[in-house]
Amino acid sequence: MSLQQPIVIDIHGHYTTAPKALEDWRNRQIAGIKDSAAMPKASELRISDDALRESIETNQLAKMRERGSDLTIFSPRASFMAHHIGDFNVSSTWAAICNELCYRVSQLFPDHFIGAAMLPQSPGVDPKTCIPEIERCVKEFGMVGINLNPDPSGGHWNSPPLTDRHWYPIYEKMVELDIPAMIHVSTSCNACFHTTGAHYINADTTAVMQLIQGDLFKDFPTLKFVIPHGGGAAPYHWGRYRGLAQELKKPLLSEHLLKNIFFDTCVYHQPGINLLTQVIPVDNILFASEMIGAVRGIDPETGHYYDDTKRYVLATPHLNAQQRYKVFEANARRVYPRLDAALNARGL
Amino acid sequence: MSLQQPIVIDIHGHYTTAPKALEDWRNRQIAGIKDSAAMPKASELRISDDALRESIETNQLAKMRERGSDLTIFSPRASFMAHHIGDFNVSSTWAAICNELCYRVSQLFPDHFIGAAMLPQSPGVDPKTCIPEIERCVKEFGMVGINLNPDPSGGHWNSPPLTDRHWYPIYEKMVELDIPAMIHVSTSCNACFHTTGAHYINADTTAVMQLIQGDLFKDFPTLKFVIPHGGGAAPYHWGRYRGLAQELKKPLLSEHLLKNIFFDTCVYHQPGINLLTQVIPVDNILFASEMIGAVRGIDPETGHYYDDTKRYVLATPHLNAQQRYKVFEANARRVYPRLDAALNARGL
Repeated sequence: MSLQQPIVIDIHGHYTTAPKALEDWRNRQIAGIKDSAAMPKASELRISDDALRESIETNQLAKMRERGSDLTIFSPRASFMAHHIGDFNVSSTWAAICNELCYRVSQLFPDHFIGAAMLPQSPGVDPKTCIPEIERCVKEFGMVGINLNPDPSGGHWNSPPLTDRHWYPIYEKMVELDIPAMIHVSTSCNACFHTTGAHYINADTTAVMQLIQGDLFKDFPTLKFVIPHGGGAAPYHWGRYRGLAQELKKPLLSEHLLKNIFFDTCVYHQPGINLLTQVIPVDNILFASEMIGAVRGIDPETGHYYDDTKRYVLATPHLNAQQRYKVFEANARRVYPRLDAALNARGL
Repeated sequence: MSLQQPIVIDIHGHYTTAPKALEDWRNRQIAGIKDSAAMPKASELRISDDALRESIETNQLAKMRERGSDLTIFSPRASFMAHHIGDFNVSSTWAAICNELCYRVSQLFPDHFIGAAMLPQSPGVDPKTCIPEIERCVKEFGMVGINLNPDPSGGHWNSPPLTDRHWYPIYEKMVELDIPAMIHVSTSCNACFHTTGAHYINADTTAVMQLIQGDLFKDFPTLKFVIPHGGGAAPYHWGRYRGLAQELKKPLLSEHLLKNIFFDTCVYHQPGINLLTQVIPVDNILFASEMIGAVRGIDPETGHYYDDTKRYVLATPHLNAQQRYKVFEANARRVYPRLDAALNARGL
């Protein structure tokens, strides 16, 4: 452990900058849903290592170097998961392709990227169908976590809550493999919900409240969820959630939730990070930026990128050096044991 | 104007403590949807003035006196609006009954309560059908605002966004009568969304993002919305929303939203109110508690009621006396012109 120089681990990055060939292939796949003669084979997608390298070096890696972050947990683009499109076979092929690209990025830049998997979820399909892809990504690709979509319908919310036994096959596999899940929805196809401005944040809030209502962690004491985007509305309304848990006769949230759920720092202004680090125990906060993601501009109030969250974490008055080390490195190594093992294997 | 003694106006109170006869009548009405012979008449509901008085004096009014708030803008119980139940006629009769009870409370305690109306919304029904009830409540009952439900389905979100012309008949009437709307959903009948823990907060967040995406206030420059529960997730993620507006090529939020939308102080812990009062301009913050509402307990960390939000407003470091006067009184008088007129008529 080095207080001076933590390894700065960004636990929330997506491959938002993949070469355009990927999107073209996806569009052909979508066309193939209605016209099976037009359905492309996975093998028809060809992206060279050089193209992958360039898409990363000029984008995520350039910004990581500028901002001083070392390693990103890297998963397929969240809004492109679009589990509502097509059936299980469509999702399965698409997830396999996207996960392979993230794996290849992690092989090309092993010091800077390590994978997390999207799942081949499909509305109404048993989540246990996702298990082979989880196995493949963890065992063959060395991935350290998964992204679990609590609403594969894309804004209609017709799957059961996360506390329902519907999801248990996924949780059993997570416990067996010792991997956490980030709870992350994809594109909204409901006109009421803007994808990154409403659907993402609502999903985070919804997940926290589902977990308060239920007793999932009695069944899975070692299960770990990361709630992205700073936990949605939950930290801002932490008094409300403590009070609702009390009315529901649940234990204190420190006992009921905080052994199992963690919040990232994807909150794009200083007052938000100040609140997060004041309200949520430091052991439950993991550094992240979701760069390059939903908010790509420069904040005219600061002159810095909105999503340069490292600045906010460094500036919050609620963390000392030891606590910042936890947020930047130690918590990620604890929540993602396979990440820790990978770093240990490299002598880090 | 008195800096020493503002009139403390709580702009968000619901009649959550109505005599049980009201719920019994509603249950008979719900039974009558399937069996029309069982449908009760409105006139069969009888609640005496004494019963109303007791339900208020021992509950809301007792707490207002304890906490030192003077006047509550009082509307029917939000979770009981349940616009998804039955058709327009069912909603119409129910809204009329609930609004009349709030009017009677305002007549029994004219110094302490003034009404705001629920609307007889019904899924799939043109919002213009709500106009007669708005007219009646404002012109006959002296009500000063309305509660507009952006999702009368109760968690399925299949109405158009608030920026859609679908809603314009309501907005035209609001402008004509010079009344604001609080954007407030009702009970969730979607198992994914806990009513007060997820659906309410998500609706607030969703409304803010819809208004960022659209240009509603170009069509209605004087239209005013109150976003309850401290604006959902919006103030906590204000950097995200400023950044998303920037990506959408909208004006700064101060120009694009803040002439027309206002946040209440229903955030049930000190750090949340501190953030709200740091991030949102003071002219856009209205005191409220939603007492007696979703969170009725005492916070073990403070020994005070979670929803005793006056304490947080008094304690935030981000407001001076002049600014607190705005939050407690002046902003409410500006956003609710008919409230201001009613107070002026009493020499206040």
